[in-house]
Amino acid sequence: MTKVKEIGEQGLLAKLQNFCPPEIIGDDAAVLETAPGTSLVVTTDVLVDGVHFSDATTSPEDAGWRAAAANLSDLAAMGASPLGITVGLGLPGDLNVSWVERLYQGMTECLQKYNTLIVGGDVVRSPVTTLSITAFGQVDPQKIIRRSAAQVGDAIVVTGVHGASHGGLQLLLNPQLGQNLTTAEKTALINAHQRPQPRLDVVPILWEILTPQLPLPITGMDSSDGLADAILQICRASGVGAVIERQKIPVPASFEHWLKPEQAIEYALYGGEDFELVLCLPKEQANTLVEKLGQDAAIIGTITSGSQVLLHDEHEKIPDQVLSLSQGFQHFGQ
Amino acid sequence: MTKVKEIGEQGLLAKLQNFCPPEIIGDDAAVLETAPGTSLVVTTDVLVDGVHFSDATTSPEDAGWRAAAANLSDLAAMGASPLGITVGLGLPGDLNVSWVERLYQGMTECLQKYNTLIVGGDVVRSPVTTLSITAFGQVDPQKIIRRSAAQVGDAIVVTGVHGASHGGLQLLLNPQLGQNLTTAEKTALINAHQRPQPRLDVVPILWEILTPQLPLPITGMDSSDGLADAILQICRASGVGAVIERQKIPVPASFEHWLKPEQAIEYALYGGEDFELVLCLPKEQANTLVEKLGQDAAIIGTITSGSQVLLHDEHEKIPDQVLSLSQGFQHFGQ
Repeated sequence: MTKVKEIGEQGLLAKLQNFCPPEIIGDDAAVLETAPGTSLVVTTDVLVDGVHFSDATTSPEDAGWRAAAANLSDLAAMGASPLGITVGLGLPGDLNVSWVERLYQGMTECLQKYNTLIVGGDVVRSPVTTLSITAFGQVDPQKIIRRSAAQVGDAIVVTGVHGASHGGLQLLLNPQLGQNLTTAEKTALINAHQRPQPRLDVVPILWEILTPQLPLPITGMDSSDGLADAILQICRASGVGAVIERQKIPVPASFEHWLKPEQAIEYALYGGEDFELVLCLPKEQANTLVEKLGQDAAIIGTITSGSQVLLHDEHEKIPDQVLSLSQGFQHFGQ
Repeated sequence: MTKVKEIGEQGLLAKLQNFCPPEIIGDDAAVLETAPGTSLVVTTDVLVDGVHFSDATTSPEDAGWRAAAANLSDLAAMGASPLGITVGLGLPGDLNVSWVERLYQGMTECLQKYNTLIVGGDVVRSPVTTLSITAFGQVDPQKIIRRSAAQVGDAIVVTGVHGASHGGLQLLLNPQLGQNLTTAEKTALINAHQRPQPRLDVVPILWEILTPQLPLPITGMDSSDGLADAILQICRASGVGAVIERQKIPVPASFEHWLKPEQAIEYALYGGEDFELVLCLPKEQANTLVEKLGQDAAIIGTITSGSQVLLHDEHEKIPDQVLSLSQGFQHFGQ
């Protein structure tokens, strides 16, 4: 009989999607019609001790913050505003109660920052610490951000720097790294990893810009699994390609005196967990959005016909590279 | 440092409830206001292999059905109609893919019966098979069923027999039991354990009866943790007591030639997982409800002032007993 490990998470998800209607899955979160004029957006994440978090690199507070932030980021990626989260916990009996309280403290700090809260949950005995979060939000059905509507000619906007979270993780795992970085720079990178900020703030700004014309639907997703993943997923779902300008991808300024340009771009494209939004918009509106968001937001490329996602060097010193997901996985062994 | 096992699930929940607003928890599910005229009801359960299910007594299909049924029952207990569930899975790599598909098959069978569906989820690697379900439903805020509004003089209605699920579990664990039972009787009890039926069907009937007068709010909960637990929780939340008529509690007819009366009443009160509703209503409306629901529904007692829940023998052969949760736990070692 076939084992789960033989077909992997993606293979299993493909099989299990036979049990779900295709029209409500396939995005960052599921969408359900409730009352007229409002849709319910639901997203769920399971995190397992030793797989997704570890006391070696992450305090319980940070594990809690990161788990809450990842789910809020999925809501932001759908254009939704949060209603709350539920928390399911599986806990070994000999876990310290203070660990659990610190986990909740971290979750609550993150949720409070975004004006939302824990609304319920379940606690059970388990041989391994397991954290299951379901977040729900609401959105005007006309303003749902989807992955599948990118148009040829759209500008590709990122709402902030990429690579910072992965840089922070590397510093945590290998304290001998980053000798050229100042303490403040190190702290900023580590903070980006431990306390990522979901971009719920972008959603109202986006609608402020778009309301006069409503060029619907808006296309976008979050970059939780890496910037390359986000661009590739959008292109696949929309049936388009893209050209990404290598030099336009915003990375932390500190990378300049720490990483070689090739390494910096790899961190940015494949590092993951930056929790920014990647949005595809007509050029004029993209410019307005970048202007409104300020410093770290940028237009990094253009949607093209075809299906390839090319990484282009504006100085034409490096030949165009075709982006793929497997490249990222090889690099970081995820 | 205090360990989780030292304070137990209830002790830990009490600590964690400091992180949740009290007004939206404390019932079978959390309630959130969304659009005007509709509330979102959310409930979550975590199930762990070896703790909550086991291949020894439960096929993957049945584990899936039971998990879905338990969550739908929580929605019914709030008076809500289901919108869907999300499923978070933690799976060891060497689990058979077919096990997971059979689990989903069982969940889907249950959900389809109640016109709802799986709307999303997450699959991750874990050393122990873990199933985390979040169910959401919607309800007119005026028609939410709460635990906390029972009135002195209300009749206590159960929507069906109790003890059947525990009887079925005993037959599965000890095949030598129940020699006096026919095969059909055994099958019915085992089926009650493996394929419990959440009482979503009761909600519209209840409103059909109540609409002319609307004596709001309605009080009730489900009996998933046992009938005694449901009555005690309602009385505690409402600040009232109750007298339960021993002979009025409906048990499976087959118990008569299998269990002694004392044992039958223990199965009914403390067995759990019957997933019926326990409702407190003015006597006239309680009579109408029982009539409409038919055979197995019954009025089993009355809400009283004070705080004690008494088990009364109509023949007055057995002295009144005070119901408590610890009695149940001692009996069944839960």
